[in-house]
Amino acid sequence: MTGTERAAVATEAEAGDPAFEAALKAAIDGKTKPPGSLGRIEALAAQIARLQRTLAPRADTCRLTIFAADHGIAAEGVSAFPQAVTRQMVLNFLGGGAAANVFARAVGAEITVVDAGVAGGPVAAAGLVAARIGDGTANSAAGPAMTEDQLAAAMGAGRGFGTAGAAQVMAFGEMGIANTAAAALVAGKVLGLAPAAIAGRGTGLDEAGLAHKRAVLDRAAARTGPRLPAQAALREYGGFEIAMMAGAMLAAAEAGRLVLVDGFIATAAAACALDIDPRTRRALVFCHLSDEAGHGAVLAALGAEPLLSLGLRLGEGTGALLALPLVRAAAAMLREMASFESAGVSRR
Amino acid sequence: MTGTERAAVATEAEAGDPAFEAALKAAIDGKTKPPGSLGRIEALAAQIARLQRTLAPRADTCRLTIFAADHGIAAEGVSAFPQAVTRQMVLNFLGGGAAANVFARAVGAEITVVDAGVAGGPVAAAGLVAARIGDGTANSAAGPAMTEDQLAAAMGAGRGFGTAGAAQVMAFGEMGIANTAAAALVAGKVLGLAPAAIAGRGTGLDEAGLAHKRAVLDRAAARTGPRLPAQAALREYGGFEIAMMAGAMLAAAEAGRLVLVDGFIATAAAACALDIDPRTRRALVFCHLSDEAGHGAVLAALGAEPLLSLGLRLGEGTGALLALPLVRAAAAMLREMASFESAGVSRR
Repeated sequence: MTGTERAAVATEAEAGDPAFEAALKAAIDGKTKPPGSLGRIEALAAQIARLQRTLAPRADTCRLTIFAADHGIAAEGVSAFPQAVTRQMVLNFLGGGAAANVFARAVGAEITVVDAGVAGGPVAAAGLVAARIGDGTANSAAGPAMTEDQLAAAMGAGRGFGTAGAAQVMAFGEMGIANTAAAALVAGKVLGLAPAAIAGRGTGLDEAGLAHKRAVLDRAAARTGPRLPAQAALREYGGFEIAMMAGAMLAAAEAGRLVLVDGFIATAAAACALDIDPRTRRALVFCHLSDEAGHGAVLAALGAEPLLSLGLRLGEGTGALLALPLVRAAAAMLREMASFESAGVSRR
Repeated sequence: MTGTERAAVATEAEAGDPAFEAALKAAIDGKTKPPGSLGRIEALAAQIARLQRTLAPRADTCRLTIFAADHGIAAEGVSAFPQAVTRQMVLNFLGGGAAANVFARAVGAEITVVDAGVAGGPVAAAGLVAARIGDGTANSAAGPAMTEDQLAAAMGAGRGFGTAGAAQVMAFGEMGIANTAAAALVAGKVLGLAPAAIAGRGTGLDEAGLAHKRAVLDRAAARTGPRLPAQAALREYGGFEIAMMAGAMLAAAEAGRLVLVDGFIATAAAACALDIDPRTRRALVFCHLSDEAGHGAVLAALGAEPLLSLGLRLGEGTGALLALPLVRAAAAMLREMASFESAGVSRR
């Protein structure tokens, strides 16, 4: 499907209750402001209201689940950082010192850190949730990244994380050296875009590094047809963390939880979730446009317009966390703002 | 001055401590993330650090002061709403039901509401701060909006509000029917842009209404030369709330407080403050690009790139409040994130 077709399916899935839609429009337009003057905040409020089936939606509580895993394709030299950094960053998350921790504290969100398959054996650390699918994926430039069983295990575990706890808003982040390469392959195959064309510098490749990464992606992509269903794309190229995140998004959306979609890698997971079930769309809030070169093209293919554009390219769920206050403000607008009538304010 | 010249003056005023700059760069680049990967959040952190002269900056506490006033030019029919709405909205702010109230609660900011000159006599309401300069301005299409004494009183009162309380972050909002007309005139005259060319639909004028507004602005603008110093522009065309906000921004910046600049009207006040003292720039955070048509041109003339672009066109400080969490996250990033060394994470 094209982005427009996907959007149409999602809209169709959402429609169907004209009475609710009329009440929602009346509530938003009746607030003490010129109609439409809160722009995307109004659209966001409507989305949350539809998802929660209420004119008093809530987005107070948020859990960020960070899925960490390693990628066999890192052996091809597609990242500026060594693979050991995945494991080191898991410990940094648990110690509270990473950007995601700082932003989560700043905006008021809880964090769960999941070992989805970090290379080098189990990570022994208090507070870490072990859901290891393997010791990193296989090198997808040479063959499938994971087995059918591993894919099923990753998506199944992801579904569990998607509905864990009671937070109204679920954000999903990731950590995994070389996972911009994996995400370019997965998103490219699902959306029919050339992976090399949507590849970027990741953690900071130079020109030569980027050219090499593109050549590796071309080689990996040539193993399969130009377009694959989500499950096949994930099995051939996916990280365990990307598959787990896709499962989490599907389950969270089915459960009526709002899903904050972070940057390039999370958007690849969202593309998979939408390919599997387009109704997921009603739950997804695309949070930011990453500085990773291909993110704009992937978002455009999905017909998605992100809320923020701040030049971020870190992942971890950082962009999702920075968008959370906008989501909360949107829900509060619908829930708490006075109407022209209740406040005695004249209309036009 | 052009936007570039203004920026150069501001940069010159900021420079001068190479040791601090080196320490700041080392601190930001030493955080556990690829250098530059937090994009504008890094630049924002650096701005707050420079303003507060510390590598552990804070942006926890925020006060939004909303200045309300009426405009004689409303008699020309330049707004979609009746003038009585200014007074009604003051009561709505005090009752906690306006968008600014809802967003302030959502992000954790305090609100002060100031009667800077609402038409129809003093507003009797508990909690309102009276600083009335007059019963609305005179009609600036026919003559000066205010006297020299009124301008001095407005800017002086504004200076007091700019340093009131102890908040680390000062946000300024406004309410005043017809104040997009006043702001277009003030900003246009200060920046050398045709006011009619930067005029927009305000609270929602239709095509005919916008054409009429532009004709009124052309008539008003023709009374004076194409470019005016800030004080003259404010006296000839300004609202009391715009003059007060300019004074508040100047004083807040002098006191080293961070200033959140809201939308079109607040940016007109910022243009005045910058014209009077370009060093104000170091304190200003341009929070959002308004949907009001001329805002982009005014921001470009100031060389300012706003943080958010959400299609807002409400004023009241709503866009500033929505940007506050980004400011807090930026300060927290510099203050709290682990370094590669402290977290034991490998560099490239």
